[in-house]
Amino acid sequence: MSDFYRIALDVMGGDYGSRITLSGAAMALNAMPELYLFLVGDQAEIEQGLAARGIHGDLLSRAKIVHAPSVVTMDDKATSILKEKKDSSVRIAAECVRKDDAHGMVSMGHTGAAMVASMKVIGTLPGVYRPCLATVLPSFKGVPVVLLDVGANVDCKSEHIAQFALMGAVYAEEVLGVTEPKIGVLSVGEEDGKGSETTRHALDALRHLDVNFGGNAEGRDIWNGKFNVVACDGFVGNVVLKSSEALAEGVFGGLKNSLRSNLLSRLGGLLVRPSIRSFYKKLDYAEYGGAPLLGVRGISIIGHGRSNERAVYNAIRVAARGAKNNVSGRIQERMRHLLQMSQKSETA
Amino acid sequence: MSDFYRIALDVMGGDYGSRITLSGAAMALNAMPELYLFLVGDQAEIEQGLAARGIHGDLLSRAKIVHAPSVVTMDDKATSILKEKKDSSVRIAAECVRKDDAHGMVSMGHTGAAMVASMKVIGTLPGVYRPCLATVLPSFKGVPVVLLDVGANVDCKSEHIAQFALMGAVYAEEVLGVTEPKIGVLSVGEEDGKGSETTRHALDALRHLDVNFGGNAEGRDIWNGKFNVVACDGFVGNVVLKSSEALAEGVFGGLKNSLRSNLLSRLGGLLVRPSIRSFYKKLDYAEYGGAPLLGVRGISIIGHGRSNERAVYNAIRVAARGAKNNVSGRIQERMRHLLQMSQKSETA
Repeated sequence: MSDFYRIALDVMGGDYGSRITLSGAAMALNAMPELYLFLVGDQAEIEQGLAARGIHGDLLSRAKIVHAPSVVTMDDKATSILKEKKDSSVRIAAECVRKDDAHGMVSMGHTGAAMVASMKVIGTLPGVYRPCLATVLPSFKGVPVVLLDVGANVDCKSEHIAQFALMGAVYAEEVLGVTEPKIGVLSVGEEDGKGSETTRHALDALRHLDVNFGGNAEGRDIWNGKFNVVACDGFVGNVVLKSSEALAEGVFGGLKNSLRSNLLSRLGGLLVRPSIRSFYKKLDYAEYGGAPLLGVRGISIIGHGRSNERAVYNAIRVAARGAKNNVSGRIQERMRHLLQMSQKSETA
Repeated sequence: MSDFYRIALDVMGGDYGSRITLSGAAMALNAMPELYLFLVGDQAEIEQGLAARGIHGDLLSRAKIVHAPSVVTMDDKATSILKEKKDSSVRIAAECVRKDDAHGMVSMGHTGAAMVASMKVIGTLPGVYRPCLATVLPSFKGVPVVLLDVGANVDCKSEHIAQFALMGAVYAEEVLGVTEPKIGVLSVGEEDGKGSETTRHALDALRHLDVNFGGNAEGRDIWNGKFNVVACDGFVGNVVLKSSEALAEGVFGGLKNSLRSNLLSRLGGLLVRPSIRSFYKKLDYAEYGGAPLLGVRGISIIGHGRSNERAVYNAIRVAARGAKNNVSGRIQERMRHLLQMSQKSETA
């Protein structure tokens, strides 16, 4: 088992529960011979689900059921995993990582609960002020863009934003395979003087580091591929992410309707459907497999509640890749290196 | 002239200068018999432009050229209108409003300069902490949504955001014709406890007022029509606006390309083009005619540099409507009313 990338999957999380997560798990086990999964959740339900999917033999030799008697529901508070829901699937998945049984965890359940489990049970890396939630967006240039923080930290100081940027750069390098990712701080104008007090200080901090820093990024730069990493506080990131999701859904939904508006459009719609679908697929979050919570002692991938089996598969794939390339260790190194640099400059 | 809605147009502003602004002006004079325009800019250029467009007779009896020898360019600072560019078209347009010759001004030029001219030359209404820039977005429900501030104020306190919300509500009522507009504060979750310290205090302030307040709005609510007014600080508003513009442009651009990808798609594309175009038109900023700067002593509409003649026409139309319905006076009343309420509650 020691040669495998070991991931704990919160089988019970997500809007569709084990039905979807187990299908995603089977896809992942099939596709990745180096993967070992801890399937965390109700033992009987998981056993039935595996049998119903005909998952057995070699696949099952790389999976282990870890029983968890309860589930965090949308009515629970995020902090419930510390009290009344200590035996929930998401908390027990986090325990697997804390005990080093697993390199990382994946949950499609209650986002807040998965974040609390990651931060309080797995724990924060030394030198990291605050873990942050990153999301990978498809830019129209074809290069992925890491936007972070998208919701873990609402009120941020400049040093937090600067650190988010650095963690995002490690993720872009190690998981997305971008060499020397270009970093930007999300702001209201390109020039250094533009921005809030907080973002201007974050800019100053990043200017003095040995990274590929491109200065301020504007709202449009989230989509044009000018930067590989765009850092902001969790308030701005959350609002941008949710408004973008709604806008994209609305545009594609509106197009669908207008393609049905009359006979000619219907006919044309049939002809263009494959092209539109292939374009939409490029923008589909399911391909990017959930949001990594960076800065914890291990890998934690938090997926959309609405994830389909492909999104679950991709979340597991991303978690395994994070484990393989030691993202967590690399973030810790980077933070240690920075600390040494700042101590040196204080001594000098 | 006293019976007219009198608007000063910065003829020289905008990426295409007088060529587009004069065409928009002619459209507006044609469409609105109650409109009187001050055409501010280079006298000779404007005279030539009017002649070239065959604008004469009755139309010209409702227009007056006001000569301005200089123009603020994109290389100038916003504050240049206070110093070396005191004789610029945008500053002189603002002077027309300050002297009560005009009810309002419209500029498609340097956004910063137009804001400074509005705030420093026209001046802020008594009781208003800070003027703010609003934008009207088309929601997918078909109702317009006023998002503000979108860039005038980067670092905001809670009382600023609460006031933006109230000014936005007056605008929605008086210019967009929405009765009892529903107000929201942009935040990261629906519940009252969600948000930054600043937005939570803004929420508290608005809860105690006699307005149709719906609590926190999320990013997606900018597009779903659940609120008529969404208030935020100018940092968040600017980022959301610019990222949305880029996303929408990218999606429509990408669609165009995918409709050209093969012969069948091309054929289908020809059939669906009218439907897509009519859908796109619903989202087109040109229909909404620029962003009002609310909280100044008069009307100030700041348009996109890339405005076409239709956008210029709509900006003038919106300015005239603001003048007709006395938006500025109504904002002042609302602020006075609130001040009295808070004084009463202090005395009680």
